[in-house]
Amino acid sequence: MLTDNRPLAISAPEPRSLELIFNKDALSLLHSKYRVVEADPENIAGLGDDILGEARYIIGQPPLSKEVLDRMPRLRCILNVESNLINNMPYDVLFERGIHVVTTGQVFAEPVAEIGLGFALSLARGIVDADVDFRQGKELWGGDGNASARLLSGSDIGIVGFGDLGKALNRLLSGFRATVRVFDPWMPPSILKEHGVQPAGLDEVLSGSDFIFVVASVTSENKGFLGGTAFARMRKGAAFILLSRADVVDFEALMAAVASGHIVAASDVYPEEPLSGDHPVRSLKGFIRSAHRAGALDSAFKKMGDMVLEDMDLMDRGLPPMRCKRAERETVSRMRSKPVTRN
Amino acid sequence: MLTDNRPLAISAPEPRSLELIFNKDALSLLHSKYRVVEADPENIAGLGDDILGEARYIIGQPPLSKEVLDRMPRLRCILNVESNLINNMPYDVLFERGIHVVTTGQVFAEPVAEIGLGFALSLARGIVDADVDFRQGKELWGGDGNASARLLSGSDIGIVGFGDLGKALNRLLSGFRATVRVFDPWMPPSILKEHGVQPAGLDEVLSGSDFIFVVASVTSENKGFLGGTAFARMRKGAAFILLSRADVVDFEALMAAVASGHIVAASDVYPEEPLSGDHPVRSLKGFIRSAHRAGALDSAFKKMGDMVLEDMDLMDRGLPPMRCKRAERETVSRMRSKPVTRN
Amino acid sequence: MLTDNRPLAISAPEPRSLELIFNKDALSLLHSKYRVVEADPENIAGLGDDILGEARYIIGQPPLSKEVLDRMPRLRCILNVESNLINNMPYDVLFERGIHVVTTGQVFAEPVAEIGLGFALSLARGIVDADVDFRQGKELWGGDGNASARLLSGSDIGIVGFGDLGKALNRLLSGFRATVRVFDPWMPPSILKEHGVQPAGLDEVLSGSDFIFVVASVTSENKGFLGGTAFARMRKGAAFILLSRADVVDFEALMAAVASGHIVAASDVYPEEPLSGDHPVRSLKGFIRSAHRAGALDSAFKKMGDMVLEDMDLMDRGLPPMRCKRAERETVSRMRSKPVTRN
Amino acid sequence: MLTDNRPLAISAPEPRSLELIFNKDALSLLHSKYRVVEADPENIAGLGDDILGEARYIIGQPPLSKEVLDRMPRLRCILNVESNLINNMPYDVLFERGIHVVTTGQVFAEPVAEIGLGFALSLARGIVDADVDFRQGKELWGGDGNASARLLSGSDIGIVGFGDLGKALNRLLSGFRATVRVFDPWMPPSILKEHGVQPAGLDEVLSGSDFIFVVASVTSENKGFLGGTAFARMRKGAAFILLSRADVVDFEALMAAVASGHIVAASDVYPEEPLSGDHPVRSLKGFIRSAHRAGALDSAFKKMGDMVLEDMDLMDRGLPPMRCKRAERETVSRMRSKPVTRN
Repeated sequence: MLTDNRPLAISAPEPRSLELIFNKDALSLLHSKYRVVEADPENIAGLGDDILGEARYIIGQPPLSKEVLDRMPRLRCILNVESNLINNMPYDVLFERGIHVVTTGQVFAEPVAEIGLGFALSLARGIVDADVDFRQGKELWGGDGNASARLLSGSDIGIVGFGDLGKALNRLLSGFRATVRVFDPWMPPSILKEHGVQPAGLDEVLSGSDFIFVVASVTSENKGFLGGTAFARMRKGAAFILLSRADVVDFEALMAAVASGHIVAASDVYPEEPLSGDHPVRSLKGFIRSAHRAGALDSAFKKMGDMVLEDMDLMDRGLPPMRCKRAERETVSRMRSKPVTRN
Repeated sequence: MLTDNRPLAISAPEPRSLELIFNKDALSLLHSKYRVVEADPENIAGLGDDILGEARYIIGQPPLSKEVLDRMPRLRCILNVESNLINNMPYDVLFERGIHVVTTGQVFAEPVAEIGLGFALSLARGIVDADVDFRQGKELWGGDGNASARLLSGSDIGIVGFGDLGKALNRLLSGFRATVRVFDPWMPPSILKEHGVQPAGLDEVLSGSDFIFVVASVTSENKGFLGGTAFARMRKGAAFILLSRADVVDFEALMAAVASGHIVAASDVYPEEPLSGDHPVRSLKGFIRSAHRAGALDSAFKKMGDMVLEDMDLMDRGLPPMRCKRAERETVSRMRSKPVTRN
Repeated sequence: MLTDNRPLAISAPEPRSLELIFNKDALSLLHSKYRVVEADPENIAGLGDDILGEARYIIGQPPLSKEVLDRMPRLRCILNVESNLINNMPYDVLFERGIHVVTTGQVFAEPVAEIGLGFALSLARGIVDADVDFRQGKELWGGDGNASARLLSGSDIGIVGFGDLGKALNRLLSGFRATVRVFDPWMPPSILKEHGVQPAGLDEVLSGSDFIFVVASVTSENKGFLGGTAFARMRKGAAFILLSRADVVDFEALMAAVASGHIVAASDVYPEEPLSGDHPVRSLKGFIRSAHRAGALDSAFKKMGDMVLEDMDLMDRGLPPMRCKRAERETVSRMRSKPVTRN
Repeated sequence: MLTDNRPLAISAPEPRSLELIFNKDALSLLHSKYRVVEADPENIAGLGDDILGEARYIIGQPPLSKEVLDRMPRLRCILNVESNLINNMPYDVLFERGIHVVTTGQVFAEPVAEIGLGFALSLARGIVDADVDFRQGKELWGGDGNASARLLSGSDIGIVGFGDLGKALNRLLSGFRATVRVFDPWMPPSILKEHGVQPAGLDEVLSGSDFIFVVASVTSENKGFLGGTAFARMRKGAAFILLSRADVVDFEALMAAVASGHIVAASDVYPEEPLSGDHPVRSLKGFIRSAHRAGALDSAFKKMGDMVLEDMDLMDRGLPPMRCKRAERETVSRMRSKPVTRN
């Protein structure tokens, strides 16, 4: 130990594993640059003071008490590799001491945005139903099959929430010459404008869009904020694509709006996951279903490790982390998206 | 008639109709600016010399003989509103006289490109099969459902053919930070580079792509040029998306390559259309089927009329047509895509 | 000669030379693929029938009579390497026979667009005058030196003429989030929209722009079309940047508008070139002068040779030229920009 | 006071003024939403406890002691409207309490980037010298005047520092199809790649660029880091454009490199400002001079007020500031750019 002056990192990435989030080269790099101590996430307190006293980083977000934190004078950063912050630490202590808590959920932005665009194009052109019909010899040829077909190019697109995911989506849409309106009360309008989108109220997004992407995280304030009234405000035949968490919508009302033929929809998330075998959404026409798999690509998980290494490198050099997203004093207690239990 | 000095346009747009290709305002404009004479496309010769002698434009591409053309001294342009040129006129006479023959097929570029991207995203993420499984209660949740999932972002993309459709596709891909390689022997490499794509040989496109879009028209030289050898050159698990005409591929070989699990594919076109009820492609796994409906959107047809009006306006002012695509002396006899019989 | 089956190209590129327009590798390629016969441009008729009878291409646009053309049955293309078409051939004969006449002036688009943007930024920020003042110890520091400074970002920009140069300029402006309006009566509005610019009338461009770029070629119709009335319509303090030919403006009126302080301006072209030593524009404040050097970069000339080779390659394969710009039956007689006499 | 429940903001924006940084509408909004107390920046302690006890914001960054801060229990944010952080407060106390310190220097990014591009184009094309020569009747016409002319399009461009200014510059360059390499040791490479630039070492930027833009702030570590050795590494004839602070270069060495003809350069900043009347840079050929006026546009100052209002609105709603840039615990003591004394 005397000769090992590598910074010490405690590894507690559950439910991920180091192998999931680091590719082979990255894992080698991690081990060559850091003294990595694997820990039982439920018993960080059980680590000796020689470990706690040296630890500069925690990879993962295990439960931590003030007492344990007091034993970690050199701690600079807790790197959450789940994607949502967890309410298992005294955040006020961390903020006061200037210990960063960062998340790597940004890795899911690109995969989720891509499948979201895939849902939109599938809804716009009936790709799923047309293929199913074709399998059964019931396909309609040429224009006969395009009664409800529409284009994204030149359309009105609404995005609810403009974090990493909203930005990724907006980037993918850049070739479509669409008008993109964004509702995000946590973002200053001028930043939205710099991204080439129009800041808009929720009602304007609902009533003025041909396609609506919901990518807002759940907070203490927006649970179920998209219900029957909201869906009724949408344009006849418009598409509603839910990509963040089911809790932001009234799911029953969403199904009713689709069942009535007023809108079409796609969703990656559900009120309960997994969903019961007889849930009515399973047979709902005008609805594309995906089983919470929009983000969970192996390539996304591997990017987590890269982000962790880049930010640890910055902090090793006395700089603040810039790659991952930092928890904020003001909002940490307002985030309510549930942690995942599976990868 | 004496007082009617509007230019005369013969209307013979079959199998389209003026109502299909002009929206209401455009149709009013057409009639207010031009003296429109509706004609039997099979009997243009039957029109009187007062009509033929005055005609400046033909909307549609009815059969024309040299003799009929001789009776049309003021003819400036034949505006094909199908999308493929038809071999029913003495092109040499037209070129010699400087009568333009133009096509409006460009209107299909955007709709076809959009569904093509939709196919690519559906194949990349298993959107169709995942929805079908979900309907049946067999869905896989989270990462379990993503064994073969991949991203377009950052991938290698190949495009075969870089006409209007290839360009539209490239534009839609602009937000994906992908490497796009194009094989188009009719295009100078420097023009491809100006569009931000890499000129490449066919083999390089085949072996170096995660996604291949085939948008090349059929010519006298490229019939069936993508066969078993070509598919074998593709990367394991890559996606092949056929959007132009079935004649450019060996369809049996394509199905075999998909059936073997080597590649996945989507197609909008087939060797025969409509396809027999028991055609094996109907039950082929790893294949997304679409019944030649990629382009036939009402909004696309309506754009034809706009293009026709814009080019007639230019020609009325003594300028060459710029909106539609002109037949070329060198290539008109090499184009072999079959005309459509339905819209 | 018996064994030489390379296509024959007559070389008559004056006032350019092959060495000016082909880089070393390109010149080697030219000579390896073609049998190049250097000719006196004033005496093409003096070439023997063995040469004329075999010639597939002419590099340059020497005077040609119908009789000479009759002796050239295999001629496919005349490749003008000046940049403006010259009225020294029976174009009707060429069009009838399908012999292409193409120009390579597109090579100047990028250099001219760049210096044009340089003029705009220099006018907007007073770069030239500020440097001259600084040399003389009269500089104003900080905000004191910015009384008339303005940004291109977010400004209203007008472009008159949307050929290769207008398009190159629009591309350079893509990072400026500006509103770009274009006046070009030869272009269909929908094509302008596809380039992301707003089609506009001349008056709208004049009165609604902070910066106006004039890149329209001289035609039989637009000589002097920008005069005192036009300049009076411009916004107070707006910038007028002349990049095409002096003949499209009333130069006296332009100078008067600048002298009065109403607008600022830059020009690369003049009513006479070179300009007399005592011409008043030499001492005009608010005016940036450039001596017809916007396009004449060596790298631009070398691109000409590349374009020529790419199009000859297409035509060798029976395809139409796509890289250079073709003369059009309708407009060839309307183009009036004077040929250059120097490179 | 009883009925005034508007949040209280202390105004101490010196050397700016509220009138400089707020446009008329913004100033009205400020006064309608907030109780604004104008204070002597040198005597914040002199304000009564009723003011200090209520103050939520300070507009400006006046000197503050721990004692004064103790009297301000409701303080949420100090909004620096200069642009560099000042070392006049106990930052540790502020960070511990979670009081944000933010800067609005981002408003200068766009104006500085624009003049920087203007310098680059002027150097590339000799715009300044050509105009001066033309005034004196010594202009060279056409290609004769382009001996050292070059294009930015397709060139190798280096950027040193990738903060707001580097990003703004990169955006302006988006239409130039250039290869952009960035040296910024404070930025993770993957973020640079997401901006479409190549992360590079300093030496690679120096030796591999045709144009180098220096936009790095001065820190405790980079003072004078660009000296004679660095300039010698640059390509012959390359352009060096200095936009941030003179302290990052060895100015004598820069002048020597230009005087020798090895490189050309432009600078907006100087070792002393104002500069003595006989400073040799005033007569240096190959150098464009600007008197620290790159950012100081009225429109930029007015944007400061907009940013302040947007962030105060977020904080009023319990959210963190997102528009301005926050001081970071790790770097606040390393920033060394001098505050301005004039606007």
